[in-house]
Amino acid sequence: MTKKTVADEKPRVTAEPALGSTRIPADDRKPVVVEPVVVPMPETTPAPGAAGGVADGRKRVIVEGVIPEIDGGRFPIKRTVGETVVVEADVFTDGHDSLSCVLQYRKAGETGWQEIPMRFLVNDRWRGQFQVLELGRYEYTIVAWVDAFKSWRHDLSRWVQAEDITLALRVGGQLVEKAGQRAAGDDAKWLTKRARALIGDQDLDYRRQLGLDEELARLMDRYADRRLELGYDKVLGVTVDDERARFSTWYEMFPRSCSPVPGKHGTFKDCEAWLPRLAAMGFDVLYFPPIHPIGRVNRKGKNNTLTPTPDDVGSPWAIGAAEGGHKDILPALGTLEDFRRLVQKAKEHGIEVALDIALQCAPDHPYVKQHPDWFRWRPDGTVQYAENPPKKYQDIYPFNFETGDWRALWDEIRSIFEFWIQQGVRIFRVDNPHTKPFAMWEWLIGEIKKTTPNAIFLAEAFTRPKVMHRLAKLGYNQSYTYYAWRNTKWELTEYLTELTQGPGREYFRPNFWPNTPDILTEALQFGGRPAFMSRLVLAATLTANYGIYGPAYEMMEHVAVKPGSEEYLDSEKYQVRYRGFQELDGPNSLRDFIALVNRVRKRNPALQADWNLRFHQVDNEQIICYSKATGNRANVILVVVNLDPNYTQAGFTQLNLEELGLDPHQPFEVHDLLTGAHYIWNGPRNYVELNPHRMPAHLFRIRSSLHTERDFVTFDG
Amino acid sequence: MTKKTVADEKPRVTAEPALGSTRIPADDRKPVVVEPVVVPMPETTPAPGAAGGVADGRKRVIVEGVIPEIDGGRFPIKRTVGETVVVEADVFTDGHDSLSCVLQYRKAGETGWQEIPMRFLVNDRWRGQFQVLELGRYEYTIVAWVDAFKSWRHDLSRWVQAEDITLALRVGGQLVEKAGQRAAGDDAKWLTKRARALIGDQDLDYRRQLGLDEELARLMDRYADRRLELGYDKVLGVTVDDERARFSTWYEMFPRSCSPVPGKHGTFKDCEAWLPRLAAMGFDVLYFPPIHPIGRVNRKGKNNTLTPTPDDVGSPWAIGAAEGGHKDILPALGTLEDFRRLVQKAKEHGIEVALDIALQCAPDHPYVKQHPDWFRWRPDGTVQYAENPPKKYQDIYPFNFETGDWRALWDEIRSIFEFWIQQGVRIFRVDNPHTKPFAMWEWLIGEIKKTTPNAIFLAEAFTRPKVMHRLAKLGYNQSYTYYAWRNTKWELTEYLTELTQGPGREYFRPNFWPNTPDILTEALQFGGRPAFMSRLVLAATLTANYGIYGPAYEMMEHVAVKPGSEEYLDSEKYQVRYRGFQELDGPNSLRDFIALVNRVRKRNPALQADWNLRFHQVDNEQIICYSKATGNRANVILVVVNLDPNYTQAGFTQLNLEELGLDPHQPFEVHDLLTGAHYIWNGPRNYVELNPHRMPAHLFRIRSSLHTERDFVTFDG
Repeated sequence: MTKKTVADEKPRVTAEPALGSTRIPADDRKPVVVEPVVVPMPETTPAPGAAGGVADGRKRVIVEGVIPEIDGGRFPIKRTVGETVVVEADVFTDGHDSLSCVLQYRKAGETGWQEIPMRFLVNDRWRGQFQVLELGRYEYTIVAWVDAFKSWRHDLSRWVQAEDITLALRVGGQLVEKAGQRAAGDDAKWLTKRARALIGDQDLDYRRQLGLDEELARLMDRYADRRLELGYDKVLGVTVDDERARFSTWYEMFPRSCSPVPGKHGTFKDCEAWLPRLAAMGFDVLYFPPIHPIGRVNRKGKNNTLTPTPDDVGSPWAIGAAEGGHKDILPALGTLEDFRRLVQKAKEHGIEVALDIALQCAPDHPYVKQHPDWFRWRPDGTVQYAENPPKKYQDIYPFNFETGDWRALWDEIRSIFEFWIQQGVRIFRVDNPHTKPFAMWEWLIGEIKKTTPNAIFLAEAFTRPKVMHRLAKLGYNQSYTYYAWRNTKWELTEYLTELTQGPGREYFRPNFWPNTPDILTEALQFGGRPAFMSRLVLAATLTANYGIYGPAYEMMEHVAVKPGSEEYLDSEKYQVRYRGFQELDGPNSLRDFIALVNRVRKRNPALQADWNLRFHQVDNEQIICYSKATGNRANVILVVVNLDPNYTQAGFTQLNLEELGLDPHQPFEVHDLLTGAHYIWNGPRNYVELNPHRMPAHLFRIRSSLHTERDFVTFDG
Repeated sequence: MTKKTVADEKPRVTAEPALGSTRIPADDRKPVVVEPVVVPMPETTPAPGAAGGVADGRKRVIVEGVIPEIDGGRFPIKRTVGETVVVEADVFTDGHDSLSCVLQYRKAGETGWQEIPMRFLVNDRWRGQFQVLELGRYEYTIVAWVDAFKSWRHDLSRWVQAEDITLALRVGGQLVEKAGQRAAGDDAKWLTKRARALIGDQDLDYRRQLGLDEELARLMDRYADRRLELGYDKVLGVTVDDERARFSTWYEMFPRSCSPVPGKHGTFKDCEAWLPRLAAMGFDVLYFPPIHPIGRVNRKGKNNTLTPTPDDVGSPWAIGAAEGGHKDILPALGTLEDFRRLVQKAKEHGIEVALDIALQCAPDHPYVKQHPDWFRWRPDGTVQYAENPPKKYQDIYPFNFETGDWRALWDEIRSIFEFWIQQGVRIFRVDNPHTKPFAMWEWLIGEIKKTTPNAIFLAEAFTRPKVMHRLAKLGYNQSYTYYAWRNTKWELTEYLTELTQGPGREYFRPNFWPNTPDILTEALQFGGRPAFMSRLVLAATLTANYGIYGPAYEMMEHVAVKPGSEEYLDSEKYQVRYRGFQELDGPNSLRDFIALVNRVRKRNPALQADWNLRFHQVDNEQIICYSKATGNRANVILVVVNLDPNYTQAGFTQLNLEELGLDPHQPFEVHDLLTGAHYIWNGPRNYVELNPHRMPAHLFRIRSSLHTERDFVTFDG
């Protein structure tokens, strides 16, 4: 493999401490004339087939304990364009020789590697990093070698006796001479000249300084003897996603409820009127539940009843009818042309339309007749519907993924995604992916991303943690979470620490939803406006991806279909709801608050990432406090939320000033981006008080450089 | 592969809870006559080469998160004969189907697998275990499958309506019929009959009970449909060592100091006289520093001086002279025949002789002339000796492992071990293995263990943690540790918790040495007899493998060659020392105490393992308290040590009674095996007081079943 090297651009960093200038006693400074001696060194690779099946026993470097690495390299880590991959490894060899170690990376498919020197940390740990600048797949690995020149240079700095230095310079002269043979052009000339100088007739101390010279070290690094280098035994992968996989703001709505006329079925054309409004509110993903023809057989009525009236519209998740299936559009919504136009208009507003892919069929879906072997048949000659004994879901036929015709089924499923990609969609919210084979998703997402590397798949898997993680590992770019049910400070702190600091963060990107059409939590049912506000602020600032089931959230709908249920009363899942702008834009709407929070997210890069989340203590269990900062601390956001929707809560912060980039001896300003208020704080301990009925949260931007009298040059200064 | 199954011997454990008997309403109990319907099910494997390169997309099980697994399966775990391997994994599938999961294991080289059912724990975690009964290498992996019968049985227990049960029984009848086709003999007949009964004309409730029958479940388990089973993608290894790799008691001595005549060079024949004494003291490994001819060139004098006198004997680690090298014996010690006899005699006393293999040469070692290319030559035409600038070790030539002739060098090194194995030695203490290539050790130990599976390699690597762990991972069966420098309660607790509970315990077996000829710690230099006693008790009870540099320990030698040094004054490394029995068996010796501690170790199996170590709190930082118990709690040892060598210390324990197998409401007896004292204790909190000048430790055996008046049947009872 040809190796592209970036050594020219970036200096190699070594594990060796900077060398001081060890002075030689004056007595030893007499020049020593020596003849260069050629030492027999093994230059050839030994013949294969000898002892032990070991390819080359002279390769003595160990590379292990590499992070990030998921399941022994089985899965790639994830990044978005422009992000950095920091790689660490234990690298060592036997004995006391010095090492060199480089991080290699490339875009998958390239044959060469880019190389970045790794830096020694402590305890045999090395670190290097690279940036991913393009969508798609990257690869990385590590290569290290015993570096004879580094060892020699280290020893040279420690020898004291003239005879030892003299001999060492002869050894060094040979090392440098050989490097000169590996080099070309001016470098080769320079090295050859230096090799002669080291063993020449100059003053010993001068020659020793020539040996310790930084420029020599740099060139010896570039032309290092890497014949016995050894690589880590795995090449690890990185999936590089579009930025919106990391930072996105979702609005879910039912297009059939978009009509400006009460009682009328909405259309894609009606949806177009929503776009300026949603853009103004700061949303960049508009997500629709399934838009396909809805089954008539066993159709559900309002509030999930089994006794529909003829005018009931059914659940959009009961996909397929005479008009078509997963690649067709419910005629009442409009035409495919209408849909394409909506997608295009949305893009003009900076909004991507995301579709819901639910891989299941209504009994009258065309697939049932066309592909009977894609379903499970029962001994009574009927198709097996979804069931969870004793419950039955007779309007839904799941696919039988154990069918012998699974390849055709997989191909058809892939073609569904491809069809909608052709219509301009690249973001998919996949319904219940955990009830379809993991192997299919890994294959399918891999295939789609080959041609559409900016595709984003959001896994709607509200299930057990191992299952959710597997889906993320195998390729889902975003994941729904347990956020809706994490309410107390302890729960939020534990969960967010796991999500943002645990090993799963390398592949599991959370997307926080305070509500969905399926989830109206008790917190929202009973918490009133303060709960809607605080749960929104938390979702919008704890993670960079968040979304709301929009119209219901804006209007703070909070009535469940029955006590103890998390289902909405008169849920849009089963009926058309009138969503007039008059109400949505009226005084009882959260519109302006949501828009404000989203504006803060857009303007503050600190809120556009997850890993930078840090919690700060507050001496009140009802108040949670956390911060996010950009790497250079140019943008620092501090969030304080009162989790109690009923009462004013107050307490003292215990800020980690270092995380906030603050000088403990200087006051700093916190500017509340929700209220516009400014406060001057000082040190870690500051008083906070939040009345949830006025504003349950502070969303502070921190300014550390206050103007004080110290900014002026005084007569004393 | 043919699969041996142990299902006959062991019941399969399933993840399903025990089924209650769900009663059917009486109305539904009318018999339903149905015709068996054959449902088309895919019986054939789809043709290869279709979508996505996936072999069979119908295989839906995931096995991940397997422990134990070292570095993604790169290295085997370690056990000794008779020990158990407990394996856990995350096993799950998409959807809600039930699973079956088996742990497969075999002796390496066998083609079939033994199978043990794995048991569901919680959170998709499964556990199984097997025992290793033979020396050598074992393998294990995991296989799981979606179990249609289990899912069906689970559903059957939950259906309520007669029509649902009737249909379910028809489905079940087909499942059972197919199992009958997979079975043979009586089982086949039984299953076929049961299949007919399920869909027969008997009462519905009765047929439902037939479907839920335990015997049916057992047989369906045995003849499970495993066509779509999926295995973990790795086969993991276990190195099974001889028991002495886990539990051993080492005594190090210099044979040249064994003469009964002061000033005379000891011989192997002299050593024979030591055997009854060492056996009586409870040692089972007698370890000698190198026994080879000692170089004369640059020989070191007494106390490591560079000015030897002609009668100085030199360091045994400066190996090789005119008389021979690593396969020869220093003539002053005797002949090879003498050595073999000593090894044999030792075995008769239950003692194994362990040799020190130091892969380095004195300048006059025959290798230097025979194989000049195994050494590094300097430009002045001399061989590179060991150096650590500005220090030089001119009596030692290290091998150049980067020689082109490395294969011959490796083969020769292997032949050294093989030579001594032929003389009856199977335990090797390897000197500084971390200065030789890791790849060589992995190859060499693997080769040796192929023919001598009870060989034990102890790594004398006092170096950085990653390096020590790598040596253990690649095959070393025991390892020296940092124990000598762990003195405080916090240090000991942290270190032992890491060693006995951390992931490294799967491969790193500690061997604790309070002293060695190279290590006379400050604790021993200045702690007096109490320190020698407490450090011995700690070493002997914290880990199952321990050893002492014997004569020096027995006599509590504690004078360093100079202040700040850990080297002994007049070290045996450089001179012959007189070790007369009169003194060693005299009143100032620790002989009887050491013998007592070793006797306690031998008689109490709890002390013969490492992983069972548990710490208990004591409210005094100078007192450490810990216990070890056998799995069944038949043998429970509680150790309390005063770490202060100067003063009496006292405190209250806070015992974890559960770990000790104790009833919190019953008193229990602690019997001090060092002093013979008995105490009745009660609950977790008990007073301890130790005067280090009398006895710095309690070594309690716990007896939980005290006789009380409750043992008698009273008139009330």
